[in-house]
Amino acid sequence: MVSTRIEVDYLLETHGEVQRVAEFMAGEQSSGTFVAIPGETPELKERVAAQVTRLEILDHAVEGPSLPTRVKVESEARFKRAFITLSWPLDTLGPSLPNLLATIAGNLFELGSVTGLRLLDIRLPDAFAAAYPGPQFGVQGTRRLAGVEARPIIGTIIKPSVGLGPDETASLVNELCSAGIDFIKDDELQSDGPACPFHLRVEKVMRVIDTHAQRSGKKVMFAFNLTGDLDQMRRRHDTLLKHGATCMMASLNSVGLVGMIELARFGQLPIHAHRNGWGYLSRHPMLGWSYTAWQKIWRLAGADHMHVNGIGNKFAEEDSSCLASARACLAPMFTEKPCVVMPVFSSAQAPRSAPATYQGLGSTDLIVTAGGGILAHPKGAAAGVEAMQQAWQAAVAGVPLDDFARTRPNLRHALEMAA
Amino acid sequence: MVSTRIEVDYLLETHGEVQRVAEFMAGEQSSGTFVAIPGETPELKERVAAQVTRLEILDHAVEGPSLPTRVKVESEARFKRAFITLSWPLDTLGPSLPNLLATIAGNLFELGSVTGLRLLDIRLPDAFAAAYPGPQFGVQGTRRLAGVEARPIIGTIIKPSVGLGPDETASLVNELCSAGIDFIKDDELQSDGPACPFHLRVEKVMRVIDTHAQRSGKKVMFAFNLTGDLDQMRRRHDTLLKHGATCMMASLNSVGLVGMIELARFGQLPIHAHRNGWGYLSRHPMLGWSYTAWQKIWRLAGADHMHVNGIGNKFAEEDSSCLASARACLAPMFTEKPCVVMPVFSSAQAPRSAPATYQGLGSTDLIVTAGGGILAHPKGAAAGVEAMQQAWQAAVAGVPLDDFARTRPNLRHALEMAA
Repeated sequence: MVSTRIEVDYLLETHGEVQRVAEFMAGEQSSGTFVAIPGETPELKERVAAQVTRLEILDHAVEGPSLPTRVKVESEARFKRAFITLSWPLDTLGPSLPNLLATIAGNLFELGSVTGLRLLDIRLPDAFAAAYPGPQFGVQGTRRLAGVEARPIIGTIIKPSVGLGPDETASLVNELCSAGIDFIKDDELQSDGPACPFHLRVEKVMRVIDTHAQRSGKKVMFAFNLTGDLDQMRRRHDTLLKHGATCMMASLNSVGLVGMIELARFGQLPIHAHRNGWGYLSRHPMLGWSYTAWQKIWRLAGADHMHVNGIGNKFAEEDSSCLASARACLAPMFTEKPCVVMPVFSSAQAPRSAPATYQGLGSTDLIVTAGGGILAHPKGAAAGVEAMQQAWQAAVAGVPLDDFARTRPNLRHALEMAA
Repeated sequence: MVSTRIEVDYLLETHGEVQRVAEFMAGEQSSGTFVAIPGETPELKERVAAQVTRLEILDHAVEGPSLPTRVKVESEARFKRAFITLSWPLDTLGPSLPNLLATIAGNLFELGSVTGLRLLDIRLPDAFAAAYPGPQFGVQGTRRLAGVEARPIIGTIIKPSVGLGPDETASLVNELCSAGIDFIKDDELQSDGPACPFHLRVEKVMRVIDTHAQRSGKKVMFAFNLTGDLDQMRRRHDTLLKHGATCMMASLNSVGLVGMIELARFGQLPIHAHRNGWGYLSRHPMLGWSYTAWQKIWRLAGADHMHVNGIGNKFAEEDSSCLASARACLAPMFTEKPCVVMPVFSSAQAPRSAPATYQGLGSTDLIVTAGGGILAHPKGAAAGVEAMQQAWQAAVAGVPLDDFARTRPNLRHALEMAA
């Protein structure tokens, strides 16, 4: 049976009566109003009203509210938490991603009776799959362009983040290509600033990449950050095509949903989607978005690679959360249109990260970007790249890294360096 | 002197040494890396490095972190809060709003040493004013199209939010026009769903509005919600022009920045910008965005009206916060290009809201949308509209509402109803 309902799971906190608050949320986000009004007929409700289809109150009521509210709370009130699911008929809005956001993630985060609300997951009817591009390259298309099969795509990020000119960038790319890297990306701060104009960077970098490709047969994938206004992104995309680039990068929270959908529609290259800004959407556990829910929006919009942070990262996020995000990227969204994308691991990635990453993900379908983990190798970057590859061989074979390293000096040096 | 620096104020919480964390943030968001690397020369830093230009540690250290972090904190650690200002040379990124977001509101919300971070305000060099449209109509253009001078534009929202068909909507609009309303808007849930196709709604509603305009000389402004994919918004905008509509509405967090800039560039009507989703960006006081900072992005991108919630609202937000948001909308952004927009007050608005709103804002340059505050008037909607106008006359004159109501029965009935 084809589902025609949109279902969304939330974690709710309230000092009110949970069922009542959940029903109020459903009303507010469909046909309801604060007060009943004449136009809200039974027929209209049947057509467009949202329903509460699940409500599971959690044991641990808490003493204080997670989020402040102007609504007066009796001093003895306790704040209950619950998993709830709201379900909308597709006809409330039609298969529109922008309108979906306003419906499932709109005003309800501001409700006075809500002292915590986190959007945990989304299930969409097939009509959404038909209406949006989804990843045009995904795992297989990316592997084909990068020429990497059956292991992670091993990459790095141009550093310093911003400030290098086109020639300096190309020179660094030259070193990295010589080292056997699969993938390089711009930092999210680097797009088309005066210090490093986009078209010049592309021209110089692609010349280097092509020279190496002619020599070795391996064309390194470079994700050029084309984030900008729409006309700028169009021009930059054309520049990428002209110079034979194989990947484009965009910052999701900078471009926004409509811009990303448009980029996916006119774009002819894999979209490397950067999640910077994710912290303000997610960092408080009782507010905002879970990555599991959020990444579905962008996959359907057309992202091919999604950043998920990394094991042992330098940020605030726990490893278990990174791994859950990455698994979500590989879980099919629709039967006919799985929209599977490559998770991108970054931040403090090194050979040591491989076993836990593989154990947590159960797949080698990922991009891992390492900076110091590759470049600081005592025998140079080529040894650093080899050590990363060997660490993944060990991880997949289930052999402890240190055992595997005994006959592989480059991996051994890498592990010693990190210890 | 023309400023060429981007300055951003943050409220920071950390268990680390505040100056060090602030400098780390500046480094991370410009030329820095976790470890020093060869390419980061003094010349490069001079060109693109961000600086900490202000640091004011607040008295009240707190016992626990506002946001969780994987970074181990010593049990006796206290969490310090500080106002800090980071300053970037324009050359770090160039005058690009999307790249600005990645720079000032990117990864830094995820830093492990940061247990609270709120973006408080932004000051941009004039190069940004030159690069973006800003509001094309703003206060004066909106007043001209709505035919309302020297008092607030008084409006309402079509309710139920979603579910009415085009004919039912037009019939409600007919009543509202007869009542003398200035402004009507779609709910943010209503765009182009199967139950109320956009083009049919526009056609039927504009026919009603035109009929009234021919009779009374007053053309009611209707903000049609055209939120959707880019090609859909283009078509809907053309439909609006074809039928002589005078306003278009879009949900900022649904469309996103690049889509909104594009809408402002091709659009020929005022943009009524809805902020739904604002809660997940702002509701925790130690995370995310202040409205003062956030609204500047959208004003420069081209919004003409910005939602600010309202005095006595049914949501979580305090009145003082709503008023600060509204004042921010009226504060000039650049000397040559003030980008002033109309604040839109909504939620539980009624004649009683007028005095506090006027006292807090010091201006009648606003749109106020009332539902029950107008429609539930015992003498009908026309009396409800008149009561709102009279309440604002009283507010501007500094006369207590109840005194003013003595000789104005419609206002008196409205006040009695609400009491």
